[in-house]
Amino acid sequence: MNSDLLIVGGEGDLALRKLYPALFSLWIGDRLWEDIRIVALARRELSQEEFLALVREWFEDNKDDRPVDEEAWAAFTQRMHYVSTDATSTEGLQVLREQHFADAERGLVVYLATPPTIFAPVCRTLEAAGLARPSTRIVVEKPLGHDRESFLEINRDLCAIFSEEQVYRIDHYLGKEAVQNLLALRFANSLFEPLWNNQYIDNIQITVAESIGVSGRWDFYDEAGALRDMVQNHLLQLMCLTAMEPPAHLSATDVHNEKLKLLSCLRPMDDNMARENTVTGQYAEGAVGGQPVVGYCEEEGAAEKSGTETFVAIKAEVDNWRWAGVPFYLRTGKRLPKRMAEILIQFKEMPHSIFGPQASMAAPNRLLIRLQPDEIIRLELMNKTPGLDSGMPLETVSLDLSAPAGEQLPDPGAYERLLLDVLRANSTLFVNAAEVEQAWVWVDQIHAAWERIGKQPEQYTAGTWGPSQAIAMVAREGRSWYESN
Amino acid sequence: MNSDLLIVGGEGDLALRKLYPALFSLWIGDRLWEDIRIVALARRELSQEEFLALVREWFEDNKDDRPVDEEAWAAFTQRMHYVSTDATSTEGLQVLREQHFADAERGLVVYLATPPTIFAPVCRTLEAAGLARPSTRIVVEKPLGHDRESFLEINRDLCAIFSEEQVYRIDHYLGKEAVQNLLALRFANSLFEPLWNNQYIDNIQITVAESIGVSGRWDFYDEAGALRDMVQNHLLQLMCLTAMEPPAHLSATDVHNEKLKLLSCLRPMDDNMARENTVTGQYAEGAVGGQPVVGYCEEEGAAEKSGTETFVAIKAEVDNWRWAGVPFYLRTGKRLPKRMAEILIQFKEMPHSIFGPQASMAAPNRLLIRLQPDEIIRLELMNKTPGLDSGMPLETVSLDLSAPAGEQLPDPGAYERLLLDVLRANSTLFVNAAEVEQAWVWVDQIHAAWERIGKQPEQYTAGTWGPSQAIAMVAREGRSWYESN
Repeated sequence: MNSDLLIVGGEGDLALRKLYPALFSLWIGDRLWEDIRIVALARRELSQEEFLALVREWFEDNKDDRPVDEEAWAAFTQRMHYVSTDATSTEGLQVLREQHFADAERGLVVYLATPPTIFAPVCRTLEAAGLARPSTRIVVEKPLGHDRESFLEINRDLCAIFSEEQVYRIDHYLGKEAVQNLLALRFANSLFEPLWNNQYIDNIQITVAESIGVSGRWDFYDEAGALRDMVQNHLLQLMCLTAMEPPAHLSATDVHNEKLKLLSCLRPMDDNMARENTVTGQYAEGAVGGQPVVGYCEEEGAAEKSGTETFVAIKAEVDNWRWAGVPFYLRTGKRLPKRMAEILIQFKEMPHSIFGPQASMAAPNRLLIRLQPDEIIRLELMNKTPGLDSGMPLETVSLDLSAPAGEQLPDPGAYERLLLDVLRANSTLFVNAAEVEQAWVWVDQIHAAWERIGKQPEQYTAGTWGPSQAIAMVAREGRSWYESN
Repeated sequence: MNSDLLIVGGEGDLALRKLYPALFSLWIGDRLWEDIRIVALARRELSQEEFLALVREWFEDNKDDRPVDEEAWAAFTQRMHYVSTDATSTEGLQVLREQHFADAERGLVVYLATPPTIFAPVCRTLEAAGLARPSTRIVVEKPLGHDRESFLEINRDLCAIFSEEQVYRIDHYLGKEAVQNLLALRFANSLFEPLWNNQYIDNIQITVAESIGVSGRWDFYDEAGALRDMVQNHLLQLMCLTAMEPPAHLSATDVHNEKLKLLSCLRPMDDNMARENTVTGQYAEGAVGGQPVVGYCEEEGAAEKSGTETFVAIKAEVDNWRWAGVPFYLRTGKRLPKRMAEILIQFKEMPHSIFGPQASMAAPNRLLIRLQPDEIIRLELMNKTPGLDSGMPLETVSLDLSAPAGEQLPDPGAYERLLLDVLRANSTLFVNAAEVEQAWVWVDQIHAAWERIGKQPEQYTAGTWGPSQAIAMVAREGRSWYESN
C-alpha cells in the first residue's frame, strides 16, 4: 500500500536537519513512490515558497560538496506541501484531511517531530479529524519520559488512540549500517554464534562519546543527565542487539521479544552495586580539539550548581545462561575527547599458550563494531610475524569487514533507513513499549540507588575520558577500556 | 654452537637450484654466522672457480630482477668450498675432515642431496672418517622409500650410525610461511580452536596441483605415481598440521607426537573404500596454459602403456573424537590447469536461518590457506550487502590475513627457513621416522586394495581437474571442490 507522510512540527529542527534531507536522498534513490505526499504541518505562517526556501537553506548547510540534482529537487519539492495550522485544532486537521489525505485507501505515516507534551492532544485531534485510520502509523522519538511512570503516561495517551503495532519509536542508532551488519555477522555466519557466550567472551564494551557540551539546551539536559538521555535508550538498545538470543525470525515481534528478554535479565542495582559498578561525572573546564571550553555549570543558562551527570560508566550484568559472569561496560558522556560510538566484543585469552615465552605477545581476539564517526566492523586476530625469526613471533592483524572509508558507499543515513522502514511498515528496527518500559525500570533503580547513597558526579576535565574512577572500575577487574584508532 | 654445512651431491640439481640460493639469502639477511663453512662435495672434477661460476649461473637463471649485491656475493662465496671426492671413500672424507671440519667443537650439518641408494655407504664413510659426531645432523629428503619396507630399510641404515634426533627429514611444504601461519591461527587465537572439530567443520580439502608433466623423469615417476610421490608425504603432512590436536608446546617432540597420532587415526582402506573413496587418473593429451601437451604415455622415455596414476583424489577419514564424520578430500595431480597448493576449511552451514527466503544466499564460512602460487590465508564471512534494500540481503566478504601480494615480504623461501632450522637444531618442522612409517602404512593399504580390485587410472585430458569421477566422488556427498581465484 502506498503511503503518504505527515510531519507534525514540520518546520522544526529535526524535520529540517534530518527528515527532509533523508527523504530527498530516498527520492533520488527511487525508494519513494512517485505520487507520495509529504505534508509539513506547523503553526508558523509560511508560504509554500518560504517553506521550500527554508528546507533548501538547511539542506545546503548540512550537505556534502556534491552539487544538488536540480531536476530531482524540483520533482521532490513538488511532492511537499506546507500547511500552517494548529495540530490540535480539529477543524485544521479536517481541512488537511480533505486536501491531502482524503483517500483512505492510502497509508498514512504521521511523524510527531514535537515535544512529547503535545503527543496526546495531537493524537486526539487526528482521531477527531478522521486521520487515525487502522493503517495510520505514528512515529515518535526520544525523550519518551524521564522515568517509567512518565513514559507510561505518554504511552497511555498514544495507545488510547493507536494500537502498539501502529506506534514506531525511533532510536536512530538502530538504523546504522554497522548495527544491521552486527545482525548479519551474528546470524548469517556459523563462526561467531558458537563463541557468543560467557565461555569465550571476556567482556563487552559499549561507548557512545560526544565531544560537544550542552550549550543551548542546559535546562533540558539538566533535567535528564547522561543516564536518562543516552543509556536508557541508545546504549541499552545497542546492548540488546549485541547480546540478545537469536530470534527465530528476523521479524519485528521476534526481535522485540528477544530484546525485551535481555532487558529483563539486567541485574537490578542495589546500593552497593550502585556504589561499585557505576561512576558519574560532570565536565569541568578544559579543552576539546585544541579549543578551550567552559565547564558544565558555566554553560549559557546554567545554574551555579547541579548534581546532574554529564558522564556515566556502568558495569552492567546480565543474569542468564549465556552471559552470566560477562561484564558489559557501558559509558557515555559529553565533552569527551571525540565523537565516537563503538561496541567492542573482547574474547577471552587463550586457555594455554603452546608458544612458551612469546605467550605474552598473543593479545586476545577482538571484534569491533563502530557506528561513529565512520562505520566499521573489524576483527582483530593474531598472526605469525612474517620472516625467519625463531620460535613463533606473533602480531595482531586487523581485518575490516566493511569497505575502507574511502570506498564506502554514500552513507544511507540512519533516518533514511528508518523512514523507509516506517513507510514499508517494518518495525523490526524500532523499539516497542515493553522495551522502553523495561529499560526505564532498570534506569529508575539506578537513580533510586544514587539518591539513597547520595551519589554526586565527580568533576572531570573537558576533553578527557571522564573521571578516573571510570578507568579504575574496569581496572579493578584486570581489564581496560578499549582505545581504538 | 656455530655449525658448518657439508652438502653431499654439491653440484646437483637440488643444491644448485634451491640450497645455494637459500643460503645466499640467509647470508644477506645476516642469519648465518660469519665464519660458517659451506662445503660442496661431489665426484665431478671442478676447480673452485668453475664451481662458483656454476653456482652463479644457476643463481642468475632463477633469481628475480633485483641486481645481485656483489659485495655480499663475494663474502658469501668466500665461505664456500668445492671438494671433489667420492663421498664413499674414507680417505677422501678424512682429508675433508682435516681440511674443513677439524674443530669438533663446531656443529656439522650434512645435507645428503643424493639418491637414497647411497645414504647407507655415505653414512658409514662419515662414521669411519670421524665425522659422525654426536652433534652431527643429517638432512635427507624424499623419496624415502616406495613403501613401508623400503623406507624402514633406508632408515635402518641411517639409524645404524645416527640417532633419530640427528636425522632431519625435509618436507619443504612445511617451511612455507602460510603453514607456519596456520599454526599461529589455530593456536594463538581463541576464536578458531573451539570451532575446529566435527561440530562446526563440514569438510576439509587439500589440493596440491601441478601443471607440469613428468617429462625427463618418466622412469622414476612411473615407479612411484601420485599417491607415493605426493600424498604419502606432502598432502598427509599438511593434513597433520591442519588436523592434529593442540600440542602442549610448540616443540619438536610434541608436534611430532601429535602428527603421528593423527596419522594413526586415518581409517584403513578396505576394498570397498578403495573403490568408493579413491579416484585415480592418468593424463591424456590436452592443453595447459594454451599450449598443447602430450599424454603421459607419449612423454619422452615413456612405455607404451602404464598403470601408474598421475592424479589421485581420496576421501580420507579420521577416526577420532574431533574429526569423526568430517571428510578430508585430498587431491593431487600432474597436468592440472595450474600450479596450486591449498588447504580449505569449510565450516558447516548455519543450523537455522532467521532471514527467511534469503537463507540460500548465506554461503558457509570458509578458511583458505594457500601455499602456492602465492601464500594467502583468507577468511570468508557473510556480510550485509550495504544499502537500503529490504530484508537482509547478504554477500560474501573475503578477509585476507596475509598482506596483499604486492606488499608481501620477499618470500623467505621454504628452504631458507628449513636450512636455518637445521643449523639451529630445531626439528619441529621436520618429519620423524615414525610419521613417515605410519604414512606408508596407510598408503601401502591403499595400494594393496587397488591391486586386489584391479584399479586402473582413468584417462583425463591434460589441463583439466582430473577424471570426472573425482568431482562425482565429492558431489555424491552433496559437496564440491573449492575453486579459488
